Amino acid sequence: MKPKKQATPVTPWPKGQLHRVPGFRTAAMHCGLKSKAKNPDLALLVCDNLAAAAGVFTTNRVCAAPVRYSRRALAASGGQARAVIVNAGNANACTGKQGTRDATVMAELAADAIGAKAQQILVCSTGVIGEHLPMQKLRDAVPVLGQHAKKRIQYGDFARAIMTTDLVAKTAGCTTRMLGRRVHMAGACKGSGMIAPRMATMLGFVATDAPVTPRVLNKALSEVVEDTFNSVTVDGDTSTNDAVLALASGGSSRKRLSKTSGPDYEAFRAGLHYVCDALARQVAADGEGAQHLVTVFVGGARNVRQARTIARTIAESPLVKTAVAGNDPNWGRIVCAAGRSGVPIKPDDCALTVCGHDLFKAGQPLPFNERKVSHAMKRKEVSIVLMVGNGPAAARFYTCDLTHGYITINADYHT
Amino acid sequence: MKPKKQATPVTPWPKGQLHRVPGFRTAAMHCGLKSKAKNPDLALLVCDNLAAAAGVFTTNRVCAAPVRYSRRALAASGGQARAVIVNAGNANACTGKQGTRDATVMAELAADAIGAKAQQILVCSTGVIGEHLPMQKLRDAVPVLGQHAKKRIQYGDFARAIMTTDLVAKTAGCTTRMLGRRVHMAGACKGSGMIAPRMATMLGFVATDAPVTPRVLNKALSEVVEDTFNSVTVDGDTSTNDAVLALASGGSSRKRLSKTSGPDYEAFRAGLHYVCDALARQVAADGEGAQHLVTVFVGGARNVRQARTIARTIAESPLVKTAVAGNDPNWGRIVCAAGRSGVPIKPDDCALTVCGHDLFKAGQPLPFNERKVSHAMKRKEVSIVLMVGNGPAAARFYTCDLTHGYITINADYHT
Repeated sequence: MKPKKQATPVTPWPKGQLHRVPGFRTAAMHCGLKSKAKNPDLALLVCDNLAAAAGVFTTNRVCAAPVRYSRRALAASGGQARAVIVNAGNANACTGKQGTRDATVMAELAADAIGAKAQQILVCSTGVIGEHLPMQKLRDAVPVLGQHAKKRIQYGDFARAIMTTDLVAKTAGCTTRMLGRRVHMAGACKGSGMIAPRMATMLGFVATDAPVTPRVLNKALSEVVEDTFNSVTVDGDTSTNDAVLALASGGSSRKRLSKTSGPDYEAFRAGLHYVCDALARQVAADGEGAQHLVTVFVGGARNVRQARTIARTIAESPLVKTAVAGNDPNWGRIVCAAGRSGVPIKPDDCALTVCGHDLFKAGQPLPFNERKVSHAMKRKEVSIVLMVGNGPAAARFYTCDLTHGYITINADYHT
Repeated sequence: MKPKKQATPVTPWPKGQLHRVPGFRTAAMHCGLKSKAKNPDLALLVCDNLAAAAGVFTTNRVCAAPVRYSRRALAASGGQARAVIVNAGNANACTGKQGTRDATVMAELAADAIGAKAQQILVCSTGVIGEHLPMQKLRDAVPVLGQHAKKRIQYGDFARAIMTTDLVAKTAGCTTRMLGRRVHMAGACKGSGMIAPRMATMLGFVATDAPVTPRVLNKALSEVVEDTFNSVTVDGDTSTNDAVLALASGGSSRKRLSKTSGPDYEAFRAGLHYVCDALARQVAADGEGAQHLVTVFVGGARNVRQARTIARTIAESPLVKTAVAGNDPNWGRIVCAAGRSGVPIKPDDCALTVCGHDLFKAGQPLPFNERKVSHAMKRKEVSIVLMVGNGPAAARFYTCDLTHGYITINADYHT
């Protein structure tokens, strides 16, 4: 959000996928958790060496066994990992002590398969809540998956294997310069929106060959996630399984960045931000029933916390989201949502612009051509910019519109 | 929420309407703010004497001119009023200084029409946001309305005149005993849900012949609204115009209750609670697109604030609301919503019952007959009861399900 002091060295890397980052490999296959045999549902991300690792997990008090396992593994290893094993189709959530045992066994199976220790494996699950994992399927599949990962840097499609009801696979990549070298970053994620009948979860994975210590990786990831994955809302529901994991192999460099400030750190964080931001946008754009990607930008706030609160309230408002679905430049709903956010704003200080058209200023609507603005709102991306004063702080949220498609996905499957 | 120490003297009064309360009269007519000539859009509630008056208003920072006017009038008069004038079809919100002048003129017109002072009149508006009131229509109509109110205790239908897209008029009444007498209470309200294309507002009005001081009325109303009107959510959007007003004529009694504790106060508050609760339920049941009235009860919390936060998070969750629309006993979405409320709960301490069926306990789902529970959820009223521990506090929220009807009303009008 801050104005950049210098050109960032970040360069988009359109074909950036996890296995293209030097030192990483991925494997994915169908093991029987999804009903369709052609859909992969089990995946491995493996680093050839012990990587620096960091994770940001759901803040939901009801969190799934793999989240608890991975959190503990990161704490025990001091932020190091060799691999991540992920399954889709069963979230291993609300499964009691059996769930904890199953997550541990998943890690042990992956560790055996690639020749590592169990605490060097991170575990993620997404899918049905409240059902035990069919462990025999995993016992059969994980060793096979490990074999594939040993032989090739890519087997199957990692990004597709982690999908539940996502319509498209989501990947992003970039390169950046730090410590005098070009480093690579790639990410894959799956969408939020909790799905019929009891599915959940936003999962994100980032691999990089940047040479950073676990502490630097952890700090950068925490900062970046707040402004990217944590600034996406599809329906406001945080799942039991949400997790974003990052692994940094260090590449061929012996030197590791250990400072959390300065140009090298900034360049690293900028790369991480690019990847996470690109993934977060894709999550919002592929929200359940989405016809529009909506970017809500709030500026002129007293501090970032207030700007975020206002932006989130607008982005979560069903009335704003249905107005966007109807291509309606309904400034009243947007200003109204900002007004109820709890932040003390004055309508007289507010100015609203939607898709480049000024709609509201100084407490009153401006004259505007409703048909023209409505037409502008028909594009795939809709921007809402609300200035709330002369303060220095700004924030941005991504969301999507609320459509009949959302209701169909979330209500009509059962009747 | 507290266990009652004794039988309350509250008796439902099924035909209780505002004008049936001794000392009150109502008048309603069409003045041209709604397009259909048969729909009344302007209404007066008049008390024959100067009544104790209290109001609870929207917490939205963007609040409409009539809200600002009424708040000031109550402060200036020390909580006294002769009448309320209400219009539907135009909210007089986001209308700048002209809006303030128009709200004042509305009060002056009503004061002239019934022979009172302008600061003894409270003003409410609901309808389109951002357009100026067509004052000539009000100048023509208010004197006529005043004449009708002078001649009869009822002219036209007050509850229908305040409606915007409500499908049914909402009234409730009761009697209670205090200071050795039977007193009457009646209320009318209109629904929340902000409506196509830019409509808003929850409005509630209560009239009583109970003999209470303004301070007692104000305290009781504030307490009661928190647990009733402020415990309803249709789409989480607080409008610019929300207001609940109460007028207490005192009846023929010279003595006024001035204590805010003791059995007389409790009896008074219980009556007020009955009326506001009955109205709040009707608001939720008539929410936009609603097929079910949903009661969310959270018990076992450490304090009421935490119980309310959890209940509200469940009641506002689009995933819970779509699950109810689909008659789906989706315990995962309910427990998940509770988990993300910010209140530190443990799933192991939680127990969930939906429509009388136990679905979840001690961190895990219970075995249940999904078809049977789904069938039970097809009734008009769905109850969700979540115990979150052994704490002493509880709270209740009313909401409705989220259906295609909501999307149709809020998105499809414009395309």
